[in-house]
Amino acid sequence: MDLDHVFEQAKSWVLEAGEQIRSSFDKTLNIHTKADPNDLVTNIDRDTEKFFIEKIRETFPGHRILGEEGFGDELSDLNGVVWIIDPIDGTMNFIHQQRNFAISVGIYENGVGKIGLIYDIVHDELYYAVVGLGAFLNEKKIPKLKPAIVKEAILAMNITWVLKNKRVDHKRLIPLVREVRGTRSYGSAALELVYVATGRINAYISPRLAPWDYAGGAIIVEELGGIVTNLEGGKLDMLTTSSVFAASPGLHGEILEKYLK
Amino acid sequence: MDLDHVFEQAKSWVLEAGEQIRSSFDKTLNIHTKADPNDLVTNIDRDTEKFFIEKIRETFPGHRILGEEGFGDELSDLNGVVWIIDPIDGTMNFIHQQRNFAISVGIYENGVGKIGLIYDIVHDELYYAVVGLGAFLNEKKIPKLKPAIVKEAILAMNITWVLKNKRVDHKRLIPLVREVRGTRSYGSAALELVYVATGRINAYISPRLAPWDYAGGAIIVEELGGIVTNLEGGKLDMLTTSSVFAASPGLHGEILEKYLK
Repeated sequence: MDLDHVFEQAKSWVLEAGEQIRSSFDKTLNIHTKADPNDLVTNIDRDTEKFFIEKIRETFPGHRILGEEGFGDELSDLNGVVWIIDPIDGTMNFIHQQRNFAISVGIYENGVGKIGLIYDIVHDELYYAVVGLGAFLNEKKIPKLKPAIVKEAILAMNITWVLKNKRVDHKRLIPLVREVRGTRSYGSAALELVYVATGRINAYISPRLAPWDYAGGAIIVEELGGIVTNLEGGKLDMLTTSSVFAASPGLHGEILEKYLK
Repeated sequence: MDLDHVFEQAKSWVLEAGEQIRSSFDKTLNIHTKADPNDLVTNIDRDTEKFFIEKIRETFPGHRILGEEGFGDELSDLNGVVWIIDPIDGTMNFIHQQRNFAISVGIYENGVGKIGLIYDIVHDELYYAVVGLGAFLNEKKIPKLKPAIVKEAILAMNITWVLKNKRVDHKRLIPLVREVRGTRSYGSAALELVYVATGRINAYISPRLAPWDYAGGAIIVEELGGIVTNLEGGKLDMLTTSSVFAASPGLHGEILEKYLK
C-alpha cells in the first residue's frame, strides 16, 4: 500500500464527508430506530457510509470495507487492505446535541493498523496518524504520551459498567473508579480514544464495542505510545465486537494488574 | 438594579477574563493543591476572581460578591445585589484538558436570580440570560425547552453517585440511570447546566455543589422553562452547598416523583 497516497485520499474524503454533515444540520433529521432505542440511526449515517464506499471502490478497487451500516463487504479475514469505517460515531450525541460525534476511519493492511483518522466535525478537529510518521491534530504534531498513574488519572467510562450488567464484572471496576482522580463520559468511543491520545483523559474503558468504534482511534493512541487492548490485556479483534481498554503507558499495566485481572 | 447596564458590564468583563485565560495557556500552570487532590486550584483561578472583584467594586460599589476563591465578601444574607462567581468552573478539566471549563457568573437581587452568564472559553461560546428577556448562545436566541420523558432523556451525572457514598442514597439513583436513554459526565457543573438549557442533555444531577457552581447556570436554565432545585425538589441555597437537580419541564417532575422521593 502506498501510505502517502491512501492517506491523502482518506483525509480528503473525511473532510468532504464532514462538510456534508455540517451542512445537513439545517435539514430535518429523518431518524430510524433499530431494535434498541439507544441505537439511533439517521439517513446521514447511511449516506456518509455510502459516500466512502463509492470513493474507495472507485479509487482503490482492491481494498475491502467494513462499515457500521453494512453497505461494505462481508469479511471473514483481514487479508490485504481493509478500511474500517464508522460514518458517525456517537449517533446519540449527533441527534441530541449536534456535537460530540465523529467520523472514524481505520485502514489496516493484513491486520496491521496503518492509518487512523478521527474527525470531530463540529469543532473542525481532525486527528490522524500514519504509522511511524506520528500523529497530528489538524496540522499540529501531538506529543508522545507520558506515563500516568491511577491516582492522578482521569478515566472515561459510562456509568452502566459499575452497575450489575451482562458484559463485565462491575465489581472489578468499582475500586478503580474510586481510586482515579476523576471520571468522565462523552458518549463517543472515537472521541474518547483521541482524548486518550491527546492526554485529556488518561484511560478509557468500554466492555463492548464494534471494530468501527475503535479501529481508527486505536491506531492514533498506539502511534503516541499509548496501549489499546481488550479488558483482559489481549489484542483487539477487528472482525467482531470486543471490550476496549486504552490508556497511557504505565497506567495501562497498573490498571490491568491491580483492577482488571 | 439597571439590568441592561449591569448585564453589559458583566458580559464585557467575562469576555475580557476569557481572553486573558486563553492567552495564559502557553504559560506554565502553577498549580496549588488544596486539601483534596481533586480540588486543584491554579493561579489563573485566583487572578480571574481578583479581576472580577476589582471591576465590580470600582463600577458598582454597592454590590457584594461571593466567589469560589474567597476574595469576595463574607455573606450571611442575599440582600441587595450579589454577584456569585466561579472564575474557572471545571478546574480539573482546565488542568488536564485545557477545555471543558467555563467562567460562571450569577447576579442576584434580594435573592432572586436576574442575570446569568456562562462562558465556555475555548469554544468561544457565551451563554447568557437576563430574566424576562430570554437566553442566548452568543447572539443567537436559545429556544424554550420542550417537555422530555425519562426513557428518551440523556442524564449527566458522575459515576460516583451510583456507588455507595456519603452524600446521597445511591440506590435512589441506580433505577434512574437504568431507565434513561443515556448518561454523560463532563466535569463542569456550569457547562452541564447550559447543556440542559440548550437541550443537549435533558437532566443534570449532582449531590453536592457550591453556590458559584450553579448560580449562573440556574438562571439560564430557568429562563428557558427548565427547573432547577435540590434533590428533594426544594429551592437552591445560594449561601451554602446544596445538591442540584436541573431538568427539562415534565422530566423534572417525573424524576422527582418516581426516583428521588
